[in-house]
Amino acid sequence: MFTVCVRDHFMVAHSFRGEVFGPAQRMHGATYVVDVELRRSELDPDGVVVDIGRASAALRKVLADLDYRNLDEEPAFAGKNTTTEFLARMIFDRMARRIHAGELGSTARSSAGAGAGGLASMRVALRESHVAWAAYEAPL
Amino acid sequence: MFTVCVRDHFMVAHSFRGEVFGPAQRMHGATYVVDVELRRSELDPDGVVVDIGRASAALRKVLADLDYRNLDEEPAFAGKNTTTEFLARMIFDRMARRIHAGELGSTARSSAGAGAGGLASMRVALRESHVAWAAYEAPL
Amino acid sequence: MFTVCVRDHFMVAHSFRGEVFGPAQRMHGATYVVDVELRRSELDPDGVVVDIGRASAALRKVLADLDYRNLDEEPAFAGKNTTTEFLARMIFDRMARRIHAGELGSTARSSAGAGAGGLASMRVALRESHVAWAAYEAPL
Amino acid sequence: MFTVCVRDHFMVAHSFRGEVFGPAQRMHGATYVVDVELRRSELDPDGVVVDIGRASAALRKVLADLDYRNLDEEPAFAGKNTTTEFLARMIFDRMARRIHAGELGSTARSSAGAGAGGLASMRVALRESHVAWAAYEAPL
Amino acid sequence: MFTVCVRDHFMVAHSFRGEVFGPAQRMHGATYVVDVELRRSELDPDGVVVDIGRASAALRKVLADLDYRNLDEEPAFAGKNTTTEFLARMIFDRMARRIHAGELGSTARSSAGAGAGGLASMRVALRESHVAWAAYEAPL
Amino acid sequence: MFTVCVRDHFMVAHSFRGEVFGPAQRMHGATYVVDVELRRSELDPDGVVVDIGRASAALRKVLADLDYRNLDEEPAFAGKNTTTEFLARMIFDRMARRIHAGELGSTARSSAGAGAGGLASMRVALRESHVAWAAYEAPL
Repeated sequence: MFTVCVRDHFMVAHSFRGEVFGPAQRMHGATYVVDVELRRSELDPDGVVVDIGRASAALRKVLADLDYRNLDEEPAFAGKNTTTEFLARMIFDRMARRIHAGELGSTARSSAGAGAGGLASMRVALRESHVAWAAYEAPL
Repeated sequence: MFTVCVRDHFMVAHSFRGEVFGPAQRMHGATYVVDVELRRSELDPDGVVVDIGRASAALRKVLADLDYRNLDEEPAFAGKNTTTEFLARMIFDRMARRIHAGELGSTARSSAGAGAGGLASMRVALRESHVAWAAYEAPL
Repeated sequence: MFTVCVRDHFMVAHSFRGEVFGPAQRMHGATYVVDVELRRSELDPDGVVVDIGRASAALRKVLADLDYRNLDEEPAFAGKNTTTEFLARMIFDRMARRIHAGELGSTARSSAGAGAGGLASMRVALRESHVAWAAYEAPL
Repeated sequence: MFTVCVRDHFMVAHSFRGEVFGPAQRMHGATYVVDVELRRSELDPDGVVVDIGRASAALRKVLADLDYRNLDEEPAFAGKNTTTEFLARMIFDRMARRIHAGELGSTARSSAGAGAGGLASMRVALRESHVAWAAYEAPL
Repeated sequence: MFTVCVRDHFMVAHSFRGEVFGPAQRMHGATYVVDVELRRSELDPDGVVVDIGRASAALRKVLADLDYRNLDEEPAFAGKNTTTEFLARMIFDRMARRIHAGELGSTARSSAGAGAGGLASMRVALRESHVAWAAYEAPL
Repeated sequence: MFTVCVRDHFMVAHSFRGEVFGPAQRMHGATYVVDVELRRSELDPDGVVVDIGRASAALRKVLADLDYRNLDEEPAFAGKNTTTEFLARMIFDRMARRIHAGELGSTARSSAGAGAGGLASMRVALRESHVAWAAYEAPL
């Protein structure tokens, strides 16, 4: 299995509900450094998993909708704790939508000499500090 | 699959038996930076894999039993080479015991809307330098 | 010149005033990974620049007053942009106050065989992402 | 499952063919920091996945055939785009050949008390910058 | 003294002349991760050393003239070994030219309440691998 | 001022004397990742601060005398606490001796078009974990 990973980051404010969160129930914030890994069983005819430029551009668009925002005020997250693992899943879903819409250009292509065309799976990891991170991965 | 990872470290002395270890047969030591990854198929009702504070506290307790010690003098490791991969397994086992004893609080809960309650698996990685690391992973 | 560095982090929300900040004028947040470097021309009789445990504890106390907070609501920062460089200076000042109050225990001691007792200078660096950081340094 | 990882690097020139590569169609170059992960279900009698010294030496030999070279002039890569993911696969194949030839010394041994002898799988990851990497993994 | 640092990277091919370089006399290449540190004794009225967005944009322009190129064919470097330390100096000079031309917008401003207006010095560091880097620093 | 840095590591056991060290009074150990920075005001005729290969080889020799050892048994450190800052100084002194003996080959050369020949200063930093390091720097 081949993997390609691109990295970017975003900076948000939020607060959590639930005693388990302790002081994180207060309004605070985080820098999330995001790694998106894309997997494919065979390389395409150009010798790549996916065009890294396109993957980076799609990730930037997904993050631009979150960057420099207070997530408590985003209607899409109403009633949800925007934990690191929740955000990993949410970014996964938004990237997956762009991939399925053809933004990375790979879905229409069949891999050279391989039975399975396109991307097999994706993993989105968010590093919130030098001592903690979370991730979500699933088939595409 | 969701993953959450917490990081801590410990510093120990030890020596190895076996010609394959060359100069590492002498008494020496290492800083091990430990990453514990916990996996779960669905988030709990708070939107987390596990309470990061509790996971970090459990890891600290496991490492406190090793930190600033000469592993050659620990009865638990008698007759064993405390290699990086061996220590990864040993920390896995000690963390697993704490998880099964309910220290992370997640075993009694069933995941919201998910068939499988609790944590699915764990991976313990020990970085011994900027050029080498070892890990052990298994279902919980 | 000897240097010792300890690392910790804190997570806050804030917003900036001024067109130069673009989207960062909105409420957002950051994880700041903080490196505090302490410098001294000669080691003390124990062979250290400063007790790392005490330095880490003092840093934790300074960061605890900021951690998991909305800096826009802190009276101490009223009318100020809490930029990364501003925060580096503020943490420098608060650490310096603790050092001068004897919390690191080194001010009363004269360095063994050295003309100058105590710490010479300090540098506080805040990493806000994998691509940007800021710092403040000055004599103590 | 146990994993051991060793790290090394190599520095090469190359160019790509295909419009998708944009400016990377020009002669340029890269530093590739290489992580080779070796996996095994049980530790050997010495308590290791594999002798780290031997694994590092084998990796160095594989990289020495590539280091400080223009990959466009290597007959082995004629007609191929030497992308990061292609190189990960190529290094996997060359490492696998050395492993199967007994250079890591583990194939003749059966794991103590385990059904499966030898290494189960390998993953080769190449970091090309602080924001992008690629990998290839497969059973051995 | 305050410092702000921005990071970017570029990927080039080149070769060196001189027996001291051994195999690096062959055509090869490198990824250079570039850190540009800007220093100033007092913050400006917005509370910053310099607008990070502008600094990043200026750095990108400087690196775009080098990225994805064979430095042996660049007239500006004819007869020179484009070593890491040489490139650090060259990027310093090109950044300095942009700063003096007002691209970072700070030269016309005097620092609030400070005797010295504008930036005091700059440091450019190029990381060529996980085990080696070079830098050049000088007053501005 | 130009800087070149090379990195290597060593792994040792030791114990400290003095109540200030708490549990570190017990026999324990550390991995030290060592960065040696060499500074020079002008590049030599080859366009380098110093031959990186020679600098790395000299550092390896210095570390080989420490690697995989119990520092409590080294006559050279009798009666001393081998703290991170102490070791930084000791490695500085041993590197300086090799530099002055001509092992890096640069002392006999005068810099091209520069008043000062040879290396100006050196900094030795030892990272003992992901949250602490120490360094020593001085003119050469």
